[in-house]
Amino acid sequence: MKSKAMVLEAFRESLSLIEVEIPPLEEGQILVKLQASGVCGSDVHMWNGEDPRVPLPIILGHEGVGTVVDLKGVKRTVDGDPINPGDNIIWNRGVTCGKCYYCTVLKEPSLCENRRVYGINIPLNEKPYLNGCYAEHIILRTGTDIFTAPENINPSILVSSSCSGATCAHAFDMLTEHLTGKTVVVQGPGPLGVWAVVFARSLGAFQVFVIGGSTERLELCKDFGATNILNRHETTPGERKSAVLSVTHGRGADLVIEAVGAHGAVEEGIGLLRKGGTYLSTGYAQPAGLESIDFYRDVVFRNIRIQGVWVNDTSHLKQAINLIQQNPTLFEKLITQKFSLEETNEALIAMKEKKVVKAVLEM
Amino acid sequence: MKSKAMVLEAFRESLSLIEVEIPPLEEGQILVKLQASGVCGSDVHMWNGEDPRVPLPIILGHEGVGTVVDLKGVKRTVDGDPINPGDNIIWNRGVTCGKCYYCTVLKEPSLCENRRVYGINIPLNEKPYLNGCYAEHIILRTGTDIFTAPENINPSILVSSSCSGATCAHAFDMLTEHLTGKTVVVQGPGPLGVWAVVFARSLGAFQVFVIGGSTERLELCKDFGATNILNRHETTPGERKSAVLSVTHGRGADLVIEAVGAHGAVEEGIGLLRKGGTYLSTGYAQPAGLESIDFYRDVVFRNIRIQGVWVNDTSHLKQAINLIQQNPTLFEKLITQKFSLEETNEALIAMKEKKVVKAVLEM
Amino acid sequence: MKSKAMVLEAFRESLSLIEVEIPPLEEGQILVKLQASGVCGSDVHMWNGEDPRVPLPIILGHEGVGTVVDLKGVKRTVDGDPINPGDNIIWNRGVTCGKCYYCTVLKEPSLCENRRVYGINIPLNEKPYLNGCYAEHIILRTGTDIFTAPENINPSILVSSSCSGATCAHAFDMLTEHLTGKTVVVQGPGPLGVWAVVFARSLGAFQVFVIGGSTERLELCKDFGATNILNRHETTPGERKSAVLSVTHGRGADLVIEAVGAHGAVEEGIGLLRKGGTYLSTGYAQPAGLESIDFYRDVVFRNIRIQGVWVNDTSHLKQAINLIQQNPTLFEKLITQKFSLEETNEALIAMKEKKVVKAVLEM
Amino acid sequence: MKSKAMVLEAFRESLSLIEVEIPPLEEGQILVKLQASGVCGSDVHMWNGEDPRVPLPIILGHEGVGTVVDLKGVKRTVDGDPINPGDNIIWNRGVTCGKCYYCTVLKEPSLCENRRVYGINIPLNEKPYLNGCYAEHIILRTGTDIFTAPENINPSILVSSSCSGATCAHAFDMLTEHLTGKTVVVQGPGPLGVWAVVFARSLGAFQVFVIGGSTERLELCKDFGATNILNRHETTPGERKSAVLSVTHGRGADLVIEAVGAHGAVEEGIGLLRKGGTYLSTGYAQPAGLESIDFYRDVVFRNIRIQGVWVNDTSHLKQAINLIQQNPTLFEKLITQKFSLEETNEALIAMKEKKVVKAVLEM
Repeated sequence: MKSKAMVLEAFRESLSLIEVEIPPLEEGQILVKLQASGVCGSDVHMWNGEDPRVPLPIILGHEGVGTVVDLKGVKRTVDGDPINPGDNIIWNRGVTCGKCYYCTVLKEPSLCENRRVYGINIPLNEKPYLNGCYAEHIILRTGTDIFTAPENINPSILVSSSCSGATCAHAFDMLTEHLTGKTVVVQGPGPLGVWAVVFARSLGAFQVFVIGGSTERLELCKDFGATNILNRHETTPGERKSAVLSVTHGRGADLVIEAVGAHGAVEEGIGLLRKGGTYLSTGYAQPAGLESIDFYRDVVFRNIRIQGVWVNDTSHLKQAINLIQQNPTLFEKLITQKFSLEETNEALIAMKEKKVVKAVLEM
Repeated sequence: MKSKAMVLEAFRESLSLIEVEIPPLEEGQILVKLQASGVCGSDVHMWNGEDPRVPLPIILGHEGVGTVVDLKGVKRTVDGDPINPGDNIIWNRGVTCGKCYYCTVLKEPSLCENRRVYGINIPLNEKPYLNGCYAEHIILRTGTDIFTAPENINPSILVSSSCSGATCAHAFDMLTEHLTGKTVVVQGPGPLGVWAVVFARSLGAFQVFVIGGSTERLELCKDFGATNILNRHETTPGERKSAVLSVTHGRGADLVIEAVGAHGAVEEGIGLLRKGGTYLSTGYAQPAGLESIDFYRDVVFRNIRIQGVWVNDTSHLKQAINLIQQNPTLFEKLITQKFSLEETNEALIAMKEKKVVKAVLEM
Repeated sequence: MKSKAMVLEAFRESLSLIEVEIPPLEEGQILVKLQASGVCGSDVHMWNGEDPRVPLPIILGHEGVGTVVDLKGVKRTVDGDPINPGDNIIWNRGVTCGKCYYCTVLKEPSLCENRRVYGINIPLNEKPYLNGCYAEHIILRTGTDIFTAPENINPSILVSSSCSGATCAHAFDMLTEHLTGKTVVVQGPGPLGVWAVVFARSLGAFQVFVIGGSTERLELCKDFGATNILNRHETTPGERKSAVLSVTHGRGADLVIEAVGAHGAVEEGIGLLRKGGTYLSTGYAQPAGLESIDFYRDVVFRNIRIQGVWVNDTSHLKQAINLIQQNPTLFEKLITQKFSLEETNEALIAMKEKKVVKAVLEM
Repeated sequence: MKSKAMVLEAFRESLSLIEVEIPPLEEGQILVKLQASGVCGSDVHMWNGEDPRVPLPIILGHEGVGTVVDLKGVKRTVDGDPINPGDNIIWNRGVTCGKCYYCTVLKEPSLCENRRVYGINIPLNEKPYLNGCYAEHIILRTGTDIFTAPENINPSILVSSSCSGATCAHAFDMLTEHLTGKTVVVQGPGPLGVWAVVFARSLGAFQVFVIGGSTERLELCKDFGATNILNRHETTPGERKSAVLSVTHGRGADLVIEAVGAHGAVEEGIGLLRKGGTYLSTGYAQPAGLESIDFYRDVVFRNIRIQGVWVNDTSHLKQAINLIQQNPTLFEKLITQKFSLEETNEALIAMKEKKVVKAVLEM
């Protein structure tokens, strides 16, 4: 049996549709027929050769939901349910070793030294070949953490929990305090920013500002719970700061989440914080140069915490899935365009040109 | 000028309406005309002489909202705004010393060794006399933490944030993990239980069970976000346990909140927890005898945390106010009957006989 | 090749010395020649049939240190170093699945639903048979977390990190605050209690009381850092409470660690705490009946935390090893008698009769 | 009665010895005869006009220990003991309002909006005038948190707990994990760095590196528990990184504490961390320009936490006092030169020229 896949063979070139012979399954492997595959903003960077992790050739795509076709051995979901052909599943895109210092002593599998990620760092020429989600099928390897896909939720809606949703859960998980009554600022109204709005609100935040450059995206954030939106093209940094100070009795935001990765975001973001506030940085997922910080004024004197957030683990995926489960209709709005597998190049271009907020391939 | 007050002169006797001469204000004091005063379940226990903290005679009532009539000196709210006559305010019912080991070294003012509580442990015969909320006026002393009452919220709705809301905030504040996707059980559908439901949901809980004996109260909990209700009179303990296990893949609840204070609640509650779960006990606010626990089976072997929760501090009051602010219409449903100051005895009887969920005096 | 092992065939009967044929290794297995094997207090309970986890027949012994003889496949320590024949190693006695809800979502492998423990719940008749440490050899299975044994530390000294040391690390890991300047009470001067003293001191505790019945053991605790010892046979509960209050300005201990598992310990222990204090219960490792707690007085009103502590994970073992590494000479004092493998029954009797603090088998 | 004081009247000019008439005490004030007053590195910056908080004229000196001469009203220590003339005391140099949002809602008094600091932001011309420790007497105002000075500890040794010790306690308090077995790097072997070494060790750290430019100071750090010292003048950044990697299996340090405030320290320090590590920045206590950070490489991709640490609260002072109490002999080594009050200018020059590690004035 063969499976179609869209393969990146050279950076900045179109992905090619090829047919891959599906190998016989080895112990612990699961063959999955993909139903939907999210196109992530970082896929555009990988396509452009900006992500140092990516080997060639590769089937990109790390956000998948699909149906079990076959499996070898007894496999169970994280919840302990046996996995059978016909089950709809979703999985942690990162497969961790469970044995290294980060996995065992620090219990931070997201930092695992041997983390493999479908569609990001496992090339096409490594067995079992079907290692990414821009394909008809994917073969999940031993060690993949799997959840039953919640019933009655469209797979295309669910895919975004895999990456931006789970990363966002990781970010909020680093807070040790509740957000009830707190003021949060989100920098960047893309998928990561939308998820940040949802998490902030679902954890009790009272006021959620979003700063961005697209009116359309900012309005979308309002649908997801943002209470105040600030268009970069229509406000000065000073006006934005005043807006935050005006609702916080002059103190500033309790939490700022950077979900944009653009030069200068750090300086503005930290400046919006109250003393003792936290800056969660999630958007610098590719090299983007240096940011300048006045450590006296902006870190030490104001007792600021800056926390980088890299990917996620299975606990975070579980949280993101649950948020969709709590309001699937809302999350439909995040998916602004659907494409077929054959249209993957068009989907990447649409994401690159920011014509869509979130593109999904439906197989 | 005089103020009317309802005074408890002997336990288990009716409160008497008396007139108190309002003394001249001393530096730092604020004279407040009460708009609404909540009748707390613990007031019934105090009335019955079951709370060892209460001196006689006393003006009961610890949940107040009112309007500033006069003040001596410059006073500011917690948010730094100057307080002026005519302002509507709400305050932390407990006044802490800010100087003891608990206040300074442990930063747990709710445990302050010198905590004074309006309507609970400050007698009528201690200056400035108007020390409780079952009265036309209260005089707030130096050290009281004050918030501006949010606009457009009925004072009667706001009062419950003072005690049950704030105590509940304290309970949830003791968790260091988020509740996204978690399963919570609340024991007891009274005001404390209703608040527990609201907090659990506002912090991301997916499934919230409430166990209680009154269909009417259980239905009220559903309005506030409970997903599953279990009537004690219609289910066996085994059936209740099955209900919780059935939605948690056989593991049990992540969190159980005891908001009932009845003998036997602890045993059932802990039994509903998953390994590693947390039992927050808030309801044993008066002496209630001994509870038995099998430490091997229920604490050590299952790695259970039991956490007692006593009163609250100003941070918790702030959170409770904010939850009402996020949905004042919802909280209207909590106030099931209003009384005049003169009807305080009737209000206490109605609370004692559980004819109302939450009674409020309106002045 | 054969290996000698001491096997428990019937509860309360002597262990029998038998010879087990060493099976050929399967992928991921490691054959280890044991150098030392600790005799744990819980082994006595298992021998007596008091631990519900134990199947028969079984090679008991869960605290081992040994030398790699052979291995199948490439294996690495937690620190990433390749494991080779001749290496001296120590390992987490519990092997967890890495796949269940507790392992992945809660990141609490000590609660793993599929945890297997050498010498406790893996019978002799389960492949690869050599599943306990009362033997010349043990075969470590795939999934075992392994550390290189620190050089220049006698294996007999190191063994106690495996169980009592690591469990104690788990207990202290549940605290979110530092102990600098704090007052700690340890109930029970056995191996677990000695470790509790060491951990308390190594995390900054200023005053560490130990309560026990054996002058000899209490004196040993002093060597390990206890600042105050209280003999149960020479003091009344009231005197012990006074002793704690007298050094804490009347407040009580910040932390009490129960390391005794005896009826009544809970009531005394909680009574020694200050408001807001924490009671870590580690000693009820076998069924021991009911404990009574006045929830109003001892839990809610004083805002007490009671935390059960069950076993440990690899991070805790790492901490315990490190404490020995920081002072191996001190830990020599814990091992009060050594036995040969053939003398295992004598070692168990010595532990049962409390003639020794910690017995170790040297092979 | 008059008191001698050394007053800063113009930045970069010598302090002048003047006599101040001691005013009658007001309610809540305590007149203290100073025994010892620490000369802090930040005093040099204030002298130079580099600290924006300092008004003129001012009695500098914020680290004092002294004897109560007189007091007005009933005053108690944090531990609840009554304060009487003749008592030796030490106090939190910062007096906080207890009423603002930071004090009450966030329970972070170190961030208090109305924080007054003896010897730093209270000028000589503000009543009660004796507002700094470079004097024979100081008058402590209402709201000052006071501890009884531990007996048998030389006041000159105790003073450093007031500022560098307490600030360091604050830094370590921001960690939520234990340091047992961890590797820590301290940047800067001054008083703050020495304290960081002591805290790291007292909280379980196994390996503590110190990076600095003075062999003498680095050797002093070894006395205080540093396990590895790296002289900036004798090693390259690459060699220092290799030294840290070599003892951490190539991972990097768990924690780096910046106690130097020099340009470039941040870049080197973050580079020494393992993934998920924490950078505590305490040294940028005066404006020092911009630091550059590659957010992708050094913050997001490695999941790094950067935490600014500003001053301290009373809980931190308590911890610092306790560490001296646990080993007063050790802390004697920190005080490398003593001066009389009249020699304050010489003491400042000695600190500025780094001829001494810590200078103390003895009155």
